Amino acid sequence: MHSIEQYRSQFLAHMEQKVKIKEPVNLYEPISYILNLGGKRLRPVLTLMTTDIFGGDYKKALDAALAVEVFHNFSLVHDDIMDEAPLRRGKQTLHKKWDLNTGILSGDAMLIYSYQLLESYPAKSFKKLLKVFSKTALEVCEGQQYDVDFESREDVTIPEYLIMIQNKTAVLVAAAMKMGAIIADKPNDVQDLIYDFGKNLGIAFQLQDDYLDAFGDPKSFGKQVGGDIIENKKTYLYLKALEMGTSTQAQELEHLFSIKPKDPTDKISTVKQLFEEAGAVSRTIEEIKSYTDRAFTTLDMLNLEPGKKERLRQFGTALMNREV
Amino acid sequence: MHSIEQYRSQFLAHMEQKVKIKEPVNLYEPISYILNLGGKRLRPVLTLMTTDIFGGDYKKALDAALAVEVFHNFSLVHDDIMDEAPLRRGKQTLHKKWDLNTGILSGDAMLIYSYQLLESYPAKSFKKLLKVFSKTALEVCEGQQYDVDFESREDVTIPEYLIMIQNKTAVLVAAAMKMGAIIADKPNDVQDLIYDFGKNLGIAFQLQDDYLDAFGDPKSFGKQVGGDIIENKKTYLYLKALEMGTSTQAQELEHLFSIKPKDPTDKISTVKQLFEEAGAVSRTIEEIKSYTDRAFTTLDMLNLEPGKKERLRQFGTALMNREV
Repeated sequence: MHSIEQYRSQFLAHMEQKVKIKEPVNLYEPISYILNLGGKRLRPVLTLMTTDIFGGDYKKALDAALAVEVFHNFSLVHDDIMDEAPLRRGKQTLHKKWDLNTGILSGDAMLIYSYQLLESYPAKSFKKLLKVFSKTALEVCEGQQYDVDFESREDVTIPEYLIMIQNKTAVLVAAAMKMGAIIADKPNDVQDLIYDFGKNLGIAFQLQDDYLDAFGDPKSFGKQVGGDIIENKKTYLYLKALEMGTSTQAQELEHLFSIKPKDPTDKISTVKQLFEEAGAVSRTIEEIKSYTDRAFTTLDMLNLEPGKKERLRQFGTALMNREV
Repeated sequence: MHSIEQYRSQFLAHMEQKVKIKEPVNLYEPISYILNLGGKRLRPVLTLMTTDIFGGDYKKALDAALAVEVFHNFSLVHDDIMDEAPLRRGKQTLHKKWDLNTGILSGDAMLIYSYQLLESYPAKSFKKLLKVFSKTALEVCEGQQYDVDFESREDVTIPEYLIMIQNKTAVLVAAAMKMGAIIADKPNDVQDLIYDFGKNLGIAFQLQDDYLDAFGDPKSFGKQVGGDIIENKKTYLYLKALEMGTSTQAQELEHLFSIKPKDPTDKISTVKQLFEEAGAVSRTIEEIKSYTDRAFTTLDMLNLEPGKKERLRQFGTALMNREV
């Protein structure tokens, strides 16, 4: 077993060796730019760690880990275009640094390249890897579409919201781990269990992200606290507050989520108070715990040495504490 | 052996059965729209015909044929965004009928779906199919990038132009046929020969497209005759005329390709005359014949019954005569 830092540095060395700028430079330079913007590389680390935990050679998982990371960055590039985002990790987004067309085309090439990276695996595992990869990739597109659709819908339900974040965020974490299990040659039931672990942890993580966006510590939370409220984003907190609050509270919330005041300070504090009063904050915290518990219960069902289960549990805990 | 019409109708029936509108509707309805805009379905027909000619069951090639067609349409959707094209086959382009974001996201989903369609093949041929598919898909992106780059470059060479059209157009025709040969379980040398046949035919077809754009019969040519001249597009005719013409002719051409007069009638006739006088027209016709001949020579090297070679030759001839 290796440390997270070891997986990460091995992954970065592998990426540096694989991702080269070649002709046409205007296609490949932006790809290198976005892949080298940084980030915690959690998904590829999970792929390597899962192969290692299941007794495989984690170096054999490097190409799959890179495929996952390239796919993830492809989705960021196209999402940033759709969201008209100027910044990503504090740097210019790809389509801002270059242009719309470069963003589209370099993104497309990344998606194809992520498939191509998997060609280093033997035919049988190649097909297994591709199947989970394509299924996941389509789900990520579906999640993004739901996210877009929800912006203009006033009747989004909590189950719909959960499906959206599951597709948009959680399934890729799940697939990253399942691919690690495939490379370690584990049977289907083990693949499915580790997939469920990743999925539930991913949902918990995203729900917590919603929570921290409003109630996180500005010092440790990576993004602007209150950003979702400023943008009138229908998060779990918002939907839950609408569901649990009185009709007066719901009306006030709906009103506040229809305006964008120049100075959002008052709006943010009023909304947060409404979230609290409606009971949405405590319910969100419960829900985060429920998904985290579900993930850890799945771990218990895995036939693994206690030490290795403990490693996964520690990783999950660290992830939820934003320590990794 | 079956007729082109039979392949086409089988293909269309297969596509109808496979491509369904499901949730999220805003993602999948645009995909159904673009796939049902029509077109000659040449690439999927080539996949089916190649499997058939090589003694395979052409119905087994239906999923691969659909993958090729879905990929082709994905590239059209994203290219139409980049070209800001309002119309495709006389109907609104996807991003015009919906919006930019839908164009990007539905395109992405089509690219992934094209991979997923290949999952019906056994692991060994699946991997062979995927390898040619990904390689080709990346080349198509590279071709598109060269095309974009050439717009703002004044020093594009003929070899560069040929690489661009090879990537943007010819390799997908070649891959469609190679995939047919893979499904018929033909060895690598046969796969390579039929790939070369498709590639050379594809280059000949695209060079002829450049020629017909200026000198075609307005009645039978599908697009507006003179369109490339109006748009100052650096086609083979243009680059060859610059190369072969006197410096005075070259200067005049470069000037004409820097303006966009409201009424382009005079510009079109002057440019066509310059193409003729510089000797570019006859050289282009020779080049088209040379690539067509190269394709047919490749056919001769294939170990195939004469009747089947004749079928491929007939198809090639019909394609070049715009009769298919």
